[in-house]
Amino acid sequence: MAQSRPMGERMYGELALFSGRANPELAQEIADYLGVPLREADVFEFPNGNTYVRLHKSVRSHDVFLIQTVCSPVNQNLMELLIFIDTLRRDSAGRITAVTPYLAYARSDKKHEPRVPIAARLVADLISAAGADRWMTIDLHAGQIQGFFSIPGDELTAFHLLSDYFLKKELDDAVIVTGDLGFAKKGRNFAAKLGLPMAFVEKRRGGDGSETEALTVIGEVKGKDVIVVDDEVATAGTAVQAVNIVKEHGAKDVYLSFTHPILVPPAADRLRELPIKEIVTTNTLPLPPQKRLPNMTVLSVAPLLAEVIRRVHLGLSVGEMFGE
Amino acid sequence: MAQSRPMGERMYGELALFSGRANPELAQEIADYLGVPLREADVFEFPNGNTYVRLHKSVRSHDVFLIQTVCSPVNQNLMELLIFIDTLRRDSAGRITAVTPYLAYARSDKKHEPRVPIAARLVADLISAAGADRWMTIDLHAGQIQGFFSIPGDELTAFHLLSDYFLKKELDDAVIVTGDLGFAKKGRNFAAKLGLPMAFVEKRRGGDGSETEALTVIGEVKGKDVIVVDDEVATAGTAVQAVNIVKEHGAKDVYLSFTHPILVPPAADRLRELPIKEIVTTNTLPLPPQKRLPNMTVLSVAPLLAEVIRRVHLGLSVGEMFGE
Amino acid sequence: MAQSRPMGERMYGELALFSGRANPELAQEIADYLGVPLREADVFEFPNGNTYVRLHKSVRSHDVFLIQTVCSPVNQNLMELLIFIDTLRRDSAGRITAVTPYLAYARSDKKHEPRVPIAARLVADLISAAGADRWMTIDLHAGQIQGFFSIPGDELTAFHLLSDYFLKKELDDAVIVTGDLGFAKKGRNFAAKLGLPMAFVEKRRGGDGSETEALTVIGEVKGKDVIVVDDEVATAGTAVQAVNIVKEHGAKDVYLSFTHPILVPPAADRLRELPIKEIVTTNTLPLPPQKRLPNMTVLSVAPLLAEVIRRVHLGLSVGEMFGE
Amino acid sequence: MAQSRPMGERMYGELALFSGRANPELAQEIADYLGVPLREADVFEFPNGNTYVRLHKSVRSHDVFLIQTVCSPVNQNLMELLIFIDTLRRDSAGRITAVTPYLAYARSDKKHEPRVPIAARLVADLISAAGADRWMTIDLHAGQIQGFFSIPGDELTAFHLLSDYFLKKELDDAVIVTGDLGFAKKGRNFAAKLGLPMAFVEKRRGGDGSETEALTVIGEVKGKDVIVVDDEVATAGTAVQAVNIVKEHGAKDVYLSFTHPILVPPAADRLRELPIKEIVTTNTLPLPPQKRLPNMTVLSVAPLLAEVIRRVHLGLSVGEMFGE
Amino acid sequence: MAQSRPMGERMYGELALFSGRANPELAQEIADYLGVPLREADVFEFPNGNTYVRLHKSVRSHDVFLIQTVCSPVNQNLMELLIFIDTLRRDSAGRITAVTPYLAYARSDKKHEPRVPIAARLVADLISAAGADRWMTIDLHAGQIQGFFSIPGDELTAFHLLSDYFLKKELDDAVIVTGDLGFAKKGRNFAAKLGLPMAFVEKRRGGDGSETEALTVIGEVKGKDVIVVDDEVATAGTAVQAVNIVKEHGAKDVYLSFTHPILVPPAADRLRELPIKEIVTTNTLPLPPQKRLPNMTVLSVAPLLAEVIRRVHLGLSVGEMFGE
Amino acid sequence: MAQSRPMGERMYGELALFSGRANPELAQEIADYLGVPLREADVFEFPNGNTYVRLHKSVRSHDVFLIQTVCSPVNQNLMELLIFIDTLRRDSAGRITAVTPYLAYARSDKKHEPRVPIAARLVADLISAAGADRWMTIDLHAGQIQGFFSIPGDELTAFHLLSDYFLKKELDDAVIVTGDLGFAKKGRNFAAKLGLPMAFVEKRRGGDGSETEALTVIGEVKGKDVIVVDDEVATAGTAVQAVNIVKEHGAKDVYLSFTHPILVPPAADRLRELPIKEIVTTNTLPLPPQKRLPNMTVLSVAPLLAEVIRRVHLGLSVGEMFGE
Repeated sequence: MAQSRPMGERMYGELALFSGRANPELAQEIADYLGVPLREADVFEFPNGNTYVRLHKSVRSHDVFLIQTVCSPVNQNLMELLIFIDTLRRDSAGRITAVTPYLAYARSDKKHEPRVPIAARLVADLISAAGADRWMTIDLHAGQIQGFFSIPGDELTAFHLLSDYFLKKELDDAVIVTGDLGFAKKGRNFAAKLGLPMAFVEKRRGGDGSETEALTVIGEVKGKDVIVVDDEVATAGTAVQAVNIVKEHGAKDVYLSFTHPILVPPAADRLRELPIKEIVTTNTLPLPPQKRLPNMTVLSVAPLLAEVIRRVHLGLSVGEMFGE
Repeated sequence: MAQSRPMGERMYGELALFSGRANPELAQEIADYLGVPLREADVFEFPNGNTYVRLHKSVRSHDVFLIQTVCSPVNQNLMELLIFIDTLRRDSAGRITAVTPYLAYARSDKKHEPRVPIAARLVADLISAAGADRWMTIDLHAGQIQGFFSIPGDELTAFHLLSDYFLKKELDDAVIVTGDLGFAKKGRNFAAKLGLPMAFVEKRRGGDGSETEALTVIGEVKGKDVIVVDDEVATAGTAVQAVNIVKEHGAKDVYLSFTHPILVPPAADRLRELPIKEIVTTNTLPLPPQKRLPNMTVLSVAPLLAEVIRRVHLGLSVGEMFGE
Repeated sequence: MAQSRPMGERMYGELALFSGRANPELAQEIADYLGVPLREADVFEFPNGNTYVRLHKSVRSHDVFLIQTVCSPVNQNLMELLIFIDTLRRDSAGRITAVTPYLAYARSDKKHEPRVPIAARLVADLISAAGADRWMTIDLHAGQIQGFFSIPGDELTAFHLLSDYFLKKELDDAVIVTGDLGFAKKGRNFAAKLGLPMAFVEKRRGGDGSETEALTVIGEVKGKDVIVVDDEVATAGTAVQAVNIVKEHGAKDVYLSFTHPILVPPAADRLRELPIKEIVTTNTLPLPPQKRLPNMTVLSVAPLLAEVIRRVHLGLSVGEMFGE
Repeated sequence: MAQSRPMGERMYGELALFSGRANPELAQEIADYLGVPLREADVFEFPNGNTYVRLHKSVRSHDVFLIQTVCSPVNQNLMELLIFIDTLRRDSAGRITAVTPYLAYARSDKKHEPRVPIAARLVADLISAAGADRWMTIDLHAGQIQGFFSIPGDELTAFHLLSDYFLKKELDDAVIVTGDLGFAKKGRNFAAKLGLPMAFVEKRRGGDGSETEALTVIGEVKGKDVIVVDDEVATAGTAVQAVNIVKEHGAKDVYLSFTHPILVPPAADRLRELPIKEIVTTNTLPLPPQKRLPNMTVLSVAPLLAEVIRRVHLGLSVGEMFGE
Repeated sequence: MAQSRPMGERMYGELALFSGRANPELAQEIADYLGVPLREADVFEFPNGNTYVRLHKSVRSHDVFLIQTVCSPVNQNLMELLIFIDTLRRDSAGRITAVTPYLAYARSDKKHEPRVPIAARLVADLISAAGADRWMTIDLHAGQIQGFFSIPGDELTAFHLLSDYFLKKELDDAVIVTGDLGFAKKGRNFAAKLGLPMAFVEKRRGGDGSETEALTVIGEVKGKDVIVVDDEVATAGTAVQAVNIVKEHGAKDVYLSFTHPILVPPAADRLRELPIKEIVTTNTLPLPPQKRLPNMTVLSVAPLLAEVIRRVHLGLSVGEMFGE
Repeated sequence: MAQSRPMGERMYGELALFSGRANPELAQEIADYLGVPLREADVFEFPNGNTYVRLHKSVRSHDVFLIQTVCSPVNQNLMELLIFIDTLRRDSAGRITAVTPYLAYARSDKKHEPRVPIAARLVADLISAAGADRWMTIDLHAGQIQGFFSIPGDELTAFHLLSDYFLKKELDDAVIVTGDLGFAKKGRNFAAKLGLPMAFVEKRRGGDGSETEALTVIGEVKGKDVIVVDDEVATAGTAVQAVNIVKEHGAKDVYLSFTHPILVPPAADRLRELPIKEIVTTNTLPLPPQKRLPNMTVLSVAPLLAEVIRRVHLGLSVGEMFGE
């Protein structure tokens, strides 16, 4: 077996990094980290609204990573991703990895009532149908969405970034709180890593069929610092409820930690007015100035994505990055 | 073989007609023609930009026709179509026909230069991947796009509507002109039906690599009425050139005839200022007031679509509608 | 449109009901409810261990529902399901619905650590690959598993059966407890329907890397009746922990409610020794005498499955059974 | 379940019978038996050699059976079958059954040496790729070819036709002989039905690598009537060897029985000169006058195919035709 | 990223070049250009008409290019291509590119009337179904056929070969003429490259439904040299019409230029009798002596195909060969 | 073409060898032969019966060969194979070859009666659906099963091992006997290699419909040594019949030779009591002590499998191992 290559040698051509128009700053950060240039392509709409892509140079046999976060305008950015993949495929790329730091539609992941779509599975199918060979994303709303893809891929997590940040704060008398019971288990992991107890905010529709919701805090928050954790914040409705009710129950400092800063209006306004000591999030979505609040800390996922891209390209283990 | 059903009996369940949000007026016209109600569904965006669909009643085993023209905003309307199809499929519809009176991306139907997509094939694949069983559309930019679908379907044409309209005018000394040589063959069919001669406008880039285009009229237009024919008008750039040059060459009255009134700015302004006697088009795309010019005649495709839907539902020949 | 059939008329042939060997009693109950006989088939292993199926009569064009719960021995019952489907398909069944009241492998629904399978997606793919047209199951461990199937199907729930049973008990001073945070959200629905508060048992590995787990009760249970709710009970390890700790924290009567009685050893022994007032479950899995404890109430899912099979066969809405 | 249709009611539209150009006489016989007309279609080659099909009337939603035996010129007839299927599919047929009384390439069913095709699997895939929903054929060279199709279908057999014919002859002191050991097991079934013993002709290449073959008769033929059985006769090389050697070993009357009369030159000449009392075959392939020898009896498979088409169309059991 | 391979390094095994039986001379020319031998394989028909392929040596992991033009007999050559691909695939080739310098059925690319096939899409599907990974061809009748393939591929063009040839002639007072309006746009590109004006021959069926066609020349040809351009010439019917009518309209020298010399009878006879100064074509199809006219210039596409094969094999850009 | 790699260079990553739990001894032998370690993985059942796999180290881009014979318990071992493949695929293996020295269900390879499965095709589809890229197995019951796979693969044979072993015995006055006519042709190859004559045991059901079978020996065995050959022995029913009847007909020494020692009870007991001089088989299935009889010779297939794995990994011809 002497002819065998050394471990970790890659089987694809040259690495080529492209960015859609959704979050070019993040893509540039990743490129800088990897020390490779972002490849150039024209991406634009014709006057009739049709999106078009034109690569400047051939990617024949290349190992392509296309970075396109699927933030708002969601359908626009998603179609751009699909058309970009088609372009790469028809230019005979060797392998195409769709890197979507934030993947939209992840909350439409099951039929919780009849006659609705499972849009997350649809999106996974569309990405395959367009010609992607692999996917890469960060902190899916539900881990099961991994299984919506038939092509292999990597779900990464900003959990270590965020929890390490709080570890350094050495908050001794704090409690982890989830504003949504669907995040209870992931919240527990956060609490376990920081060695802190947990509490939950439970929401319940009024028994009289009204739209008003009754909120309960289950567990102890009185006199403690509180870290409200979640995977994403969109309108901040859940966050507002959670912060307010723990404050009502006597919480001291309140922190808010989440991976995906979707922050659609009126999220920024709402958060600005809340008694939050610090908001800790990442740059999986672009954060224009009007969304950047004074008490917001944004941790970059670029080193994480770059290192995983490097390992995928070279055929090295990704799991061992995390000691797994 | 006595147990055989009479010819034309359908094999699917009840007909169910739905409309996306792109052209509800046309959908309503079709429903009225068929004498069946439009089924109700909630179609909306969540604050995070994700499109959602919720059917009011079950379509289990139904023969569903979903009407959604893919006009601007193109990517939005296309994703709405796909998510709507997914919803119908997961509610166990018996058969789903995607009715797109105008199908976007049809001009991205080949690689005329390297490193570009074939978005029309991608769109056909996406419609299949979402779960449609059939497609129906009107006047594709190229008939070959029929072959981009692996599922069966029907390409209809507004050719008869438009040419019959001009036949009634009895323009004796007229000529059919195409502004784009890619439409030459279809223009010939128009000319043949009206018994008129043809002429062509040829466009050519300047030999010095400049952006200026040289225009030529090939064939006779002097002293004749001219009908400029095309499949669609978007910015009206081609139409402006054609109308102006035939006028320069001595044309009398000029008519403009096309199926799809995309009419993105500055099309309406441009057309308003042109010396056109009459613009004849259809309602495959919605025509809001600002696009409706005083000299514009809009022929409705609703009877055509309705009759074909009826025949597809009942398993009757579509071709014999046209004596074919 | 006068030729249209009345609503709800089915598009497939005669209904045919088959049962694998995993839970024939349940299949017979369903057949009795529907008033149709179970079709006969030989299902056996050859001496070499190969499973074989032979239908007694043809199912050509029939609308077949194959009932096979995927209980222990799991792989045996699953392969029997797949081979049975292949037999039906190759005998030209009109439509095949795989009815698995309990679907194994549902807990392997994501990669919670690197280098492991997503067996639930694999199982969904195998069922499709064998030739099923539809699936039907009860209370998946995660609703997202619906999206693992590309073929349409119906996830039913025993939630109404179980919660209605407790509603009749009129337990006024009770609390709903989940022993696993992953069930927190579904537990909340249970609590909301009964108008009761919630509490949670939180499990955490020892910080010193040891195997011992620290248990906490979050929320109030002292002096209250407790209903511990879950989707399934296998070895009853989680149930034992939850019952014991709520008792330690002063709970009065303790009830245990779950859909799937997997009850592998030593579950029956463990449950027998616990201070539980009543165990309420269903018959999605067979319950041989040694698993039926004196304090166990088994609610039958046969009427639910039968009614849904009837509606699917006839093309009627399933959702409206539940007022949805 | 009162709304259920009576057993055997079909789920597809009207039956439509088409014939390719390979064996129109057989197709007409089938049509006559069924009492339905052959549908009309133009099937021809353009001057450039491209095959074309044009249906005279629509088959929308019909239950189409396309009869095209894949005899010589094999590739021509196969491509005609595929293009015909594509035509039917794109005209929205409800169901398409490819009826190939003789299916070519069945002897290329495995790799008996490296670097060769498995053309029979390829053919099965091509028939699916063209859009057939089902297949129907007679006496495949190997039953396993059934499994090459992923779509359902029916392999019929002329075994009963042929063996019943010989049963009526009441040959008391006869023996069944196979000229090819690959047909030994099917020959045994023939022998068992007639209550006759068996013998085998074994062929072996010379040990010196020469092309000459050594022939052996294993079993007793002396003084007996011999029926040489096979599935098909092409050049008749094997038949010549078998007939000659059993004659050399003292056989009395020799009969030759096979399903598929491929009979490529010099088969007819060879058979004419052999001391064969009677050749019994069928019309799965066309038999022009020059292939019809004076001692040849041709049994028609038309009633068999017609009856099975009727049953498939109506959703009735095919197996019970044969008491199975 | 130091471990990255230099640009252009290929990811497949050794290049292996095979030829079907359709145009072995062209394949040999390509092999000579590349400096690699044509690999050996037995390709033949069994007496029963079944085509067979047997490779002499293994192609395991090789990067295989199979050259087989799909000329007449079309169905024979196409099936040979498919069976050859199956052979390569089952011998575990690393990558298979189907190189069809001329691809038949390209004119059956849409349903221009009801109830006809789209054979070009079928052919694309068959090539995929057989196991090809890529395709390569020259001057498709319609560029859209690129989109009929879901596998990637390269459409090359002989346009540069042909137009460069005419550029050298320095015909100053010439005009480009198309005999078919479907070729108008490609004819324009030819005219633009040569800096010449255009004219068109328009064909129209008689208004009385008769078969006679009325021909018109649109544009100026009088006293000019004429180059009639097309993609292929089959029976030469269109060419005869075009040449005759431009002569009638006073054309001086007439040239005929086209890529694919199909030239089925009576093309050679017709062309021989026409007043054509020179016929310029290529060798995408074999040109036996009886098709080679004295005034015919045949430009070889072998260097073009060879260079593209080399680039595809090495993962180099193909577009930059043409400065694109 | 100077950049071309030398012949035989592989295109995949490092070779990685894994074993399921069915026959770890054989896997270890193969690993030893190759000089590479068996990779480690946890393979176990959860208490609920669900099989689980966890790889110790990443296989990203590796060329993985997974060895799992599908012996009894068949369904258990098969599901373990599928789940293992899914694990490898989702860990982004570069290529996965499923090595099943013995592949169960191979006898369910056609519908010999109506309403039964073709389980062997199903198994082939399941292996593909799980994500295998290639397959490798030894002596399929029918070579046609190769064609059940759409992915490429290699069927190896123990024929050379077994026949070489008998060649060395120099049995001059011997005869090859098959106990099943379905093995007649493969038996002939055995006989031809050893230069020995053949005889056949023919089995036939009693004409009175009873279960008793009439046995006949066709050919000469009297006074000769007999080698009874088959592909596998399960319950040994056929072997018992064959040995007994040839002894009754005066055979001298009797040998039994077969590839797959399935040997389910009461095979070992039956064989122990038979007058067999020597049983020659291989280790494609595990042979625990209770199955190893004193007169049994077990030839190892490990060198064969190892050498083929090496060649597949390196892209070298497998056929030339056997001079083909």
